[in-house]
Parts: sequence; structure tokens; C-alpha cells
Amino acid sequence: MSTNSHQQNLTEDVCIAVDAMGGDFGPKVIVPALDLVIKGRPDVRFLVFGIEREIKEHLSPYKALEKRVTIHHTDQVVKNDDKPSAALRASKGSSMRLAIEAVKNGDADAVVSAGNTGALMAMAKIVLKTVPGIHRPAIASVMPGINGDTIMLDLGANLLVDSDNLVQFAVLGALFAKAHKKMHTPPSVALLNIGSEEVKGPEHIRSASDILSKIEFPGEYKGFVEGNDITKGIVDVIVCDGYAGNIALKTAEGTGKMIKHFVTQSFSSNPMAILGGLFAYFSLKNLKKKLDPGAYNGGVFLGLNGLCIKSHGGADAFGFSNAIILSVRLARLGYINQIEKDIAHLTDQTALLEEE
Amino acid sequence: MSTNSHQQNLTEDVCIAVDAMGGDFGPKVIVPALDLVIKGRPDVRFLVFGIEREIKEHLSPYKALEKRVTIHHTDQVVKNDDKPSAALRASKGSSMRLAIEAVKNGDADAVVSAGNTGALMAMAKIVLKTVPGIHRPAIASVMPGINGDTIMLDLGANLLVDSDNLVQFAVLGALFAKAHKKMHTPPSVALLNIGSEEVKGPEHIRSASDILSKIEFPGEYKGFVEGNDITKGIVDVIVCDGYAGNIALKTAEGTGKMIKHFVTQSFSSNPMAILGGLFAYFSLKNLKKKLDPGAYNGGVFLGLNGLCIKSHGGADAFGFSNAIILSVRLARLGYINQIEKDIAHLTDQTALLEEE
Repeated sequence: MSTNSHQQNLTEDVCIAVDAMGGDFGPKVIVPALDLVIKGRPDVRFLVFGIEREIKEHLSPYKALEKRVTIHHTDQVVKNDDKPSAALRASKGSSMRLAIEAVKNGDADAVVSAGNTGALMAMAKIVLKTVPGIHRPAIASVMPGINGDTIMLDLGANLLVDSDNLVQFAVLGALFAKAHKKMHTPPSVALLNIGSEEVKGPEHIRSASDILSKIEFPGEYKGFVEGNDITKGIVDVIVCDGYAGNIALKTAEGTGKMIKHFVTQSFSSNPMAILGGLFAYFSLKNLKKKLDPGAYNGGVFLGLNGLCIKSHGGADAFGFSNAIILSVRLARLGYINQIEKDIAHLTDQTALLEEE
Repeated sequence: MSTNSHQQNLTEDVCIAVDAMGGDFGPKVIVPALDLVIKGRPDVRFLVFGIEREIKEHLSPYKALEKRVTIHHTDQVVKNDDKPSAALRASKGSSMRLAIEAVKNGDADAVVSAGNTGALMAMAKIVLKTVPGIHRPAIASVMPGINGDTIMLDLGANLLVDSDNLVQFAVLGALFAKAHKKMHTPPSVALLNIGSEEVKGPEHIRSASDILSKIEFPGEYKGFVEGNDITKGIVDVIVCDGYAGNIALKTAEGTGKMIKHFVTQSFSSNPMAILGGLFAYFSLKNLKKKLDPGAYNGGVFLGLNGLCIKSHGGADAFGFSNAIILSVRLARLGYINQIEKDIAHLTDQTALLEEE
């Protein structure tokens, strides 16, 4: 493991702190997920926080994995339905908090938890702190699209935001996209808006658009997109407030599930269709894998002094493993230091804009 | 046609006013759509507004339809990209305005247009007026779900709403669902919210929830749902502000298109898959029909003194025909008179709540 968690590179080990007790299934799903991660990744190790007996029980079948795991026992667990404020007060010594502290102390390069989103964000903010200049952290995720992936943020960390918050999200999103997609040109960035011509959307979005078209930032501002553009993959980054982002993300997830339901039903509706499904078995399997929400699992908390990734609470082992793989990739990219510089540059420019 | 456009029944003719010039394709798509509508519906007639020469040109192949159509010539057309305010000022004598006036004058039972949403709403509000007591009309649409259809509103007529507006939308949605789904029990109604436990969503939603759980209205209030619940079909009505509704609707549409793209790609990826697709041809065709957004085309303007239905601007003949079929069904249901009574009852109750 690197001594500086933000400047990891390929030749060094990556260490991921894992909250084994978060999510709907705990170690039962999380331990097998870790085993999926180490396949072909000899340089990844884990600090696993939670109830030792439970973790060991699920770990015993995985001999190769056992050597990569250091268990830190705690029987304090943040419940999925705790209010974040209550969870925060009672968080000392919990598996979630200890895992975050491992990143703070430099013992791990990133933390992954499938626990309560609000509690995780609240604890991560307190333990890791925000990057200087950042007003509010945001949750970003990778969304699949016809022409490629799009980074979308905020997905629910902030309900009410102003235009300055959206502009900061644009910077965070652009840096994330650049690192994630290994881009050498400025990523294209758009604001999510609605299609009504009369109003052209709420004031905070229009005002953010105005600022983004005037300033220099790590992305290239492309104007507005609408909900139906999210899955087109026509821009690298889509910025929105957490209210719209959460609704869009969950609507996309629900629509995918509905279509999967009808497709499955359709392929078992009559003998010809069943036969057709058999012939197309491998193509359908590939398709299922491509559209599996688990393949895109992992909400990245952007704007913090340390990497924190939220897995979907209901993720299976494949899904959780993808959240960890995302954390491994991001840990290697070392883009957190860049954030501070770009946010400072942004603050200088917006100060100038206000003087005008 | 009935002399009272709001109390149509099955034994009487239904007359639909059609703006032939709206949408991306005009009469080229709209005229064939009318022909799809009359198949099996001997009691439907049309007043068609637009450029007579163009309409006649597309009408000539459809002999049966010609007898059901009365053309009202005008060469004034509201452009799709006009600002609603500009469109409104220049609207006198336009095909859109004349079609709406036909409903106002009792010449038609409903109006259907694929034109500019903002302009259509602005004109409909001015010509038809809102039902007494209604603060803001809303756009409602039928959304497909695993366990059945859900009526969702508002889909973009109002960006910024307060809790009273949401409560009125709940009444409008419940009455629409009752009529549309021919229900004898109160429709279940939920508010769209986001999943963050900390905040439980924006203030206007929490406050509307508080009111809905205390009052008597034509629906049964079920609390909050999230974006991924929209396509489950677990409630009859989902109420939200136009900002969230527009984003959810368009995200669902985009997700559907992306999956269709990948499914099509998947079935042409290799010979086995192509063969499989051939075997499953009819099942896939049925599936495509079921998930065709055109099958759910038609945004209904609720809260106006008259029926106005907006078709998707890019709808094909199948899609536009479904918007008209929806207007025919709603014209027969006569639920507009009910709105005034229920809104008055609501106003009495909220006045009492405020006094408490």
C-alpha cells in the first residue's frame, strides 16, 4: 500500500477498506464479492470491518482470498434504516466508521460500504472532510449509454442546491470522467434540464448554465440535455441536483427491471419463443450482463479528502464486486489532489464574474 | 355529437378536433393516424384544422375516412420551436387555436395536438379556462408497469409548485384514474419522493403528504414512492411536480430506447442469435408493441374546462392514433363535471386544516 493514498500507481498494492456489515446481506454477499475482485488482481488487499465470527464463517471456503484479508472485529453495526443523524451519533467504533477511518489514517486507499447512504455520507464528511473550497460533496455514478458511459452527479447527496454548487459538481464530474475514462481532452459536460420552452428550467440550472459558459474549467460545457439523453451517451458528464438525479437514476433502474420482466415473460410465452431463446442463449446472456445494474454499481462520493464508494444496498456479489473494482481503479488514478487546484481556479473566476 | 361535451356516452357520436399541423410530421402522419382510429369505431368523427391542400393530399387514399372528416382550412401554423408566449400572441386563427376553440364552442368533445406543449397549454388555459378552484392545470399520462398502468402527473406543466398544488394534482389524478381504469373503489395515490432518509424529500412534498393523510378526497393516500416504483404499477396514481415528472418520463423513455437498441444489436450479433430471433419473432413483435412508447402516447391536460390531449411531437401514425383513442375514451367518460365538486370539497377541508 502506498503511504500517500492519493497517488497510487499500478506497480503498488491497493488496499480497500470494506464495511462487511452494510447492505441487505452483509458478509454473506460481501465476502464472495471480494473473491470475485481478486481474480486477476494480485495487487489488491482488504481491510474488512465487522463481526469477526460471521466474516470468518463466510471466508473459510475462499483460501486464496483469506491471505488477502485482514479482519478488524467490531460488533457495532449501523442499521440500514437508522436516521443518518442518529447513526452518526452512535457511529463510534462501528464497522462503517472504522472503515472510513482506515482511509483517513492512510491504512487504506478507499472505503466501500453498502450501508445506509445518508449515514455513510455524514460520516465520510466528518471523518475525511471536504476538499478545501468544496461547499458540498456529491454522489456520482457511471450510467450506461448507447454511445458509451456517462458520469452523472449529483444522485442524491444534496436536495436543494444553488448554481455555484452545480458549477462545482461540473468540475468534480469532469475530473472524475477524465480519470475514469482516461481522457486526454476535456470531457464534455451538460446540465440536466426539462424540455419546457417557456421556462427553460429552474433558476439554479439556468444560472449555472450562464456561469459554465463563461468560465474555464476541466470540462467543455455543452448546454442542456433532457432525461431521454442520459442513456444516449452523448456527453461525458451530466450535472444535476440530487432531487432530479435520484429520480432519474431510480426511474432508469425501474424501467430496466420492467423491460427485463417483460422480455423474460416473452421468451417463455410459447414453445417457438422458448426455442428462439435457446438459440439466442449466449447473446441474451451477454445482453443481460451488459444491462445488469450490478455492472454499474458504485456511487462515488466526490469532493471529499479520500475515496468513499457506496454500493447499492441490495447488490449481489457481482454487483458489490463491481463497486470494489471501481474503487480500485479510482484509487490508482490519484485525481483527488487535482480537485483542490481546479476548485481554487474556479473560485477565482466566479469571484471575477461577480465583480463584473 | 353531444350538445354537452362533458356528458358523452357510448351511444352518441364522438367528435375530435385535430390540429393537423402540429408535431414533426403534420398531416403526413396525422391523417393515416385518423384512419387507424376509425377501424372498429363507427361513432368517431373529426374536425381537422390546417392547410386544406396538404390535408386533402394525404386524405385522398382513405375513402372511408374522408366521410368522417370535416376540414377547416387555415394556413396559420404554430411553429414547434416558437416560444409559448410568442406563439400565444400570434395564435389567432392558427390550426392549434381553432381546434381548441372547437371544444370551447361545443363543436368537438376533445382536441388533440402534437404541437408545441407550452403553446398548447397556454392557449388551452386561455380558451378553455381552468375548472373553478383549480390553481394550476397539470399534464397527466398513463405509464406502463409490471402490475398494470399508473397515471402520473404533473409531467411538465408546472416547474415550481407548492403543497396545495400537489394536493390538487392528487384529486385530478384520482378522478382521471377512476375514469380511465373504470374503478369503483378509490384509486391508490402516492407522492413521488427521493430515498434519502435524512430529509425525506423537499418541503413541498412532505407538506403535501401531511395534508393528503388528513383529508378526504377521491383517492386513497398511500405515502411516498421512489423512481424505481413508477414502472412497478403498485399504485394507480403517482403525483409529483413537473420538474421531477418531466425528468422521470423522459428518463424512462430514454432507458427503453437504449435497451431496445441493445436487444436489436444482440439479435443480429451472430447466426445463432439471428435464428433465435426468427423463432421468437412473434413473441418479440408482441413485446415491441407492448413497450412501444406510442402505445402510451397522450398527455392529458387536467384541470381545464374541456378535454385537451397532447401527442408526442415525434409520434408516428400508431402513436398519434393512440393519443386520439385516449381522447375518445375520456370524452365518453364525462368526468370533468366531477372535478369542480371534488375541488370545492378539498378547498373546504384545507381551509379547516389551516384554522386548526
